[in-house]
Amino acid sequence: MSLPRFVVPWTESPAENALVPLGPEQARHLGVLRLGPGAALELLLPSGPWRADLAETGKGRATARLVAPLGEDREPPIPLHACLPLTAQLSLWDDWLPGVVELGATLIQPVLYARSEPDIRRIEARMERWERIVVGACEQSHRTRIPELRSPVPFRALLEWPIPQRWVAYELATGQANPALKPEPLAFTHGPEGGITEGEFEALAAAGWQPVTLGRSILRAATCPSALLGAVQYALGSLPSP
Amino acid sequence: MSLPRFVVPWTESPAENALVPLGPEQARHLGVLRLGPGAALELLLPSGPWRADLAETGKGRATARLVAPLGEDREPPIPLHACLPLTAQLSLWDDWLPGVVELGATLIQPVLYARSEPDIRRIEARMERWERIVVGACEQSHRTRIPELRSPVPFRALLEWPIPQRWVAYELATGQANPALKPEPLAFTHGPEGGITEGEFEALAAAGWQPVTLGRSILRAATCPSALLGAVQYALGSLPSP
Repeated sequence: MSLPRFVVPWTESPAENALVPLGPEQARHLGVLRLGPGAALELLLPSGPWRADLAETGKGRATARLVAPLGEDREPPIPLHACLPLTAQLSLWDDWLPGVVELGATLIQPVLYARSEPDIRRIEARMERWERIVVGACEQSHRTRIPELRSPVPFRALLEWPIPQRWVAYELATGQANPALKPEPLAFTHGPEGGITEGEFEALAAAGWQPVTLGRSILRAATCPSALLGAVQYALGSLPSP
Repeated sequence: MSLPRFVVPWTESPAENALVPLGPEQARHLGVLRLGPGAALELLLPSGPWRADLAETGKGRATARLVAPLGEDREPPIPLHACLPLTAQLSLWDDWLPGVVELGATLIQPVLYARSEPDIRRIEARMERWERIVVGACEQSHRTRIPELRSPVPFRALLEWPIPQRWVAYELATGQANPALKPEPLAFTHGPEGGITEGEFEALAAAGWQPVTLGRSILRAATCPSALLGAVQYALGSLPSP
């Protein structure tokens, strides 16, 4: 049975016995769990995860006392940039973000493709919701760093993406083999519901993005992020140990 | 723009100009699409996909005429057995089946793990629903064979699974590398929401199932099938062409 884990954006330098205030929603959650002073917790601070215990609880507030760093590292050995398409159906993001966090993305970048067709007015409100989903998924999956969710960028930002190893999921009719994973930072992207346009694919290829195929069927956008990250994690787990 | 595609369980030997009756739901769907006699279609027959045109439509019925085999093969080069856990939350299956079909599973086997805790009385009704989801996903993803969805089996059936290459997703603390994919039939499995028990894992390992890790975080059951199949398809696409 794992301990309740809370993400706390506490920016001070953590030390044993330091008192860390929890948020009002976390205090409510502790009430639901019927946890009172002395109860054991885990806190995910910006600098990493700590064992803590509950020092004080009150109406809508709670304070934890740091016990010891957990010394746990569940992060991937390389930065993993998930450059995911904005989609007409913005709820796709709600569905795929937990898997994207569990499978180790370190940066999540929404990208406006030609066929993205999102409702731009609704994106700001969605970003707040997506932040909460990312934090919740970190708590559940025991990530030890919170992936950064960036504001949307236009497609052309991908053409100057500052990472050498870049993959784009694309249906290719050729018998070209998938690129081997190098133990270096990796960015990956895929198209929205209507797909990447030919022009976009050519621009990505010219900018050094390597096509990756995940079989011969037509994948829905919804399926791509977990499938791509599964491929990356399998390949990372196949590298010889350093 | 791809043509409407319908799965038709027509068991006769297909030939040019043969007339194939469509189902009442398909006839209704054609009405919604406002397609009448002469309209071009694609039919996925048990023997493979055919180009067809609509010969006759009427109230709740429609007949297509076969034109030519599509000569398209989108199947994976190896049989892929997805041995997926029954889950307490049976709706997980509704969510993950489309991705499992898109990513090329050729056989889908529900497995009753110790921690599966499904509502057995509801499974029969769910199986019908899952059949429909599988067929719908084949139509959307242009699979050229319909994966077989089998009736649930107890966990112990995995211990005699008649396929030499078998992977089980499991969190291992060791630095053991993932198995390389061989171009041979593959079965894979993973645990339900509460995970595989230690005893189950030991039994699978003793029976020759190889552990595969997809990173260091804790994956929800919901994320596993697409991530594992993404790994498999990436590895298949990385094999040298025959």
